[in-house]
Parts: sequence; structure tokens; C-alpha cells
Amino acid sequence: MKRRPNQRTVSYRPIGVIHTPHYAPDGTPIQPRFAKGIEGTVEVFEQYTEGLKDVDGFERLWLLYHLDRIKETRLRIVPYMDTFERGLFATRAPCRPNPIGISCVRLLGVEGNVLRIADVDMLDGTPLLDIKPYVARFDSWDTQRNGWTDRLPADRKREGTRADRRFH
Amino acid sequence: MKRRPNQRTVSYRPIGVIHTPHYAPDGTPIQPRFAKGIEGTVEVFEQYTEGLKDVDGFERLWLLYHLDRIKETRLRIVPYMDTFERGLFATRAPCRPNPIGISCVRLLGVEGNVLRIADVDMLDGTPLLDIKPYVARFDSWDTQRNGWTDRLPADRKREGTRADRRFH
Repeated sequence: MKRRPNQRTVSYRPIGVIHTPHYAPDGTPIQPRFAKGIEGTVEVFEQYTEGLKDVDGFERLWLLYHLDRIKETRLRIVPYMDTFERGLFATRAPCRPNPIGISCVRLLGVEGNVLRIADVDMLDGTPLLDIKPYVARFDSWDTQRNGWTDRLPADRKREGTRADRRFH
Repeated sequence: MKRRPNQRTVSYRPIGVIHTPHYAPDGTPIQPRFAKGIEGTVEVFEQYTEGLKDVDGFERLWLLYHLDRIKETRLRIVPYMDTFERGLFATRAPCRPNPIGISCVRLLGVEGNVLRIADVDMLDGTPLLDIKPYVARFDSWDTQRNGWTDRLPADRKREGTRADRRFH
């Protein structure tokens, strides 16, 4: 028997906060891949520290976070890397109906309830929703077709793409 | 100037619903990697259809969804693939403080507001929160250390791991 769609609002409470050297959208790297070596910390609220056991064995972690400086949803946008308008769900732009960001960051160390991380691409003070281990066997897919990103000129594929204020 | 931690509750409204042949946790694959070829559909609510433009160019998509059948949080658990207790954030177990699931599924086709997908590992009726394109250049990391999952016996690494009721 099929369940009826659940359209109820869901509520989450941040489990921590992400500290980074990115204080404004302008100039912030748009992906961890473009933020290599930029360091930050994750402060996990103390009541969740127990859940961090064994995290130190992983090279990378997924951080899921609330894009708390996004004020509006736009379903058609020009992505940072492109000059054409695209459907929002074909992009990683932050102006989403549910502004949840995901970033695969490098783990440098764990000390109590604080994670030292690198490759940070989120704004300072971003509320953390979840931490999951990056497991290459689960998460690394060798896709041949990556949509509009396959057809970008080489200069826009380079590891220098930064955000600007267009979504803020 | 550092921003103070934002501990306010965040609220999201589902943008669609995921239909799969998995009606109960027992026997459901625990990851898309273990669900190869199992088909489902994503019904995106019509007000968001406009955002699906260009999605058809991507081979795989990230689905972010609310694990709506999880009733409690546990910070130490024995994962499906293991026999030792682990910290929750070192696992992908669903009993999380904020039960958000992420799955990288294969896109088979787009027809209006419906996506046909494969490699589905979520329960039927799961509320959808977001869709993001999988971009190999952003998301595929060749990690050498994958924590406790590196030390599993071969029989538990095989592509047959299924869920049971332990978290429900």
C-alpha cells in the first residue's frame, strides 16, 4: 500500500556551528574542490560529543548545513560557473526552497567536540545540521555525463571560481 | 567579527515525495551502491517543476530527504555493516539528531515533474527536501582512509548489505 505524500513541515535544530575565514559571499570558494587547504573548525555542541567517536578514522566528512543567509528561492538562475540560465535543481546554487548545503571537507583532527577541517566553502557561523563520513565506496561515482558543467570553457573550469552577491 | 552561533530551529517543507519498492526497513539496501538497478520515481510537487530544467543532462543526482520513520536519536550504535559500537557521526545510520538522508541515485528520465530513477535505497513515501546534480569533479574524492569501513571482513563489504529493524 502506497503511503500518502507527507507535506508536513520538518524541523531541525542545529547540532553545531562551522567557523571559517569566509565572512561574506564575495570571494568565497563555491565548492571544497576550489577551497583546497583553507582551514576552519566545526564546533559540535557538547551534548553530541559522544557521537564523534571513530570519526577520526575518516579522511573526509560530509557536512550538511543550513544556508542561513539565503532569503529567497529562485527556480531559474545563472550559476556562478555559467552564463546561461539553468533550472535550480541542475545547479548547486544556494537559493533553494530548502537551503541545505552539503560539503565534503577534509578532516585534520578531532579534539573533544571540535573538528579541525580544511577545504571549507561555507560562510563563517553557518549552522551545522549533520556530519556523515565520506566513504569512497559509497560516494565516489565515475559519472560520464555531468550536464551543463561538461561544456564549460576551460577558464571557467579552473580551480578559482568564487562566489559573488548574486544570491544574497 | 565572528557571528554568534545560531541555534534556532530551522524548518523545511518537502518539495516532493520519493516512491520506491521498499515498504519496510527489513531488507532495504543500505546504500545506492547496494541497490543497483532498483527503480523508483521522484514526484516533485508542481510548483517546483520549473527548477527541473537542465536536470536531464546529469547521469546521477543527489537526493536529500527526511528520514520520516525515525523516532529517536542514538549517539552510539552498531552499524548494519559492523559488529562494534561506533559513534553515530562515523556512520550513515538513520537515527540522527537531524534525520536527513543523502543518496546519489541514477537518473533514467525526466517527464514533467516526475523523475525516473534507479539505485534507490530509501523507503517508499520518503519526503524529498532537495535535489542537487552529482558533479564528479566536485563530489568524487579518492580517499585512502575510510575509517572502520576499511577493516570489514570481505563478506560484509559485499554488495548485499540490507537494513533491518534495529533503528526503527
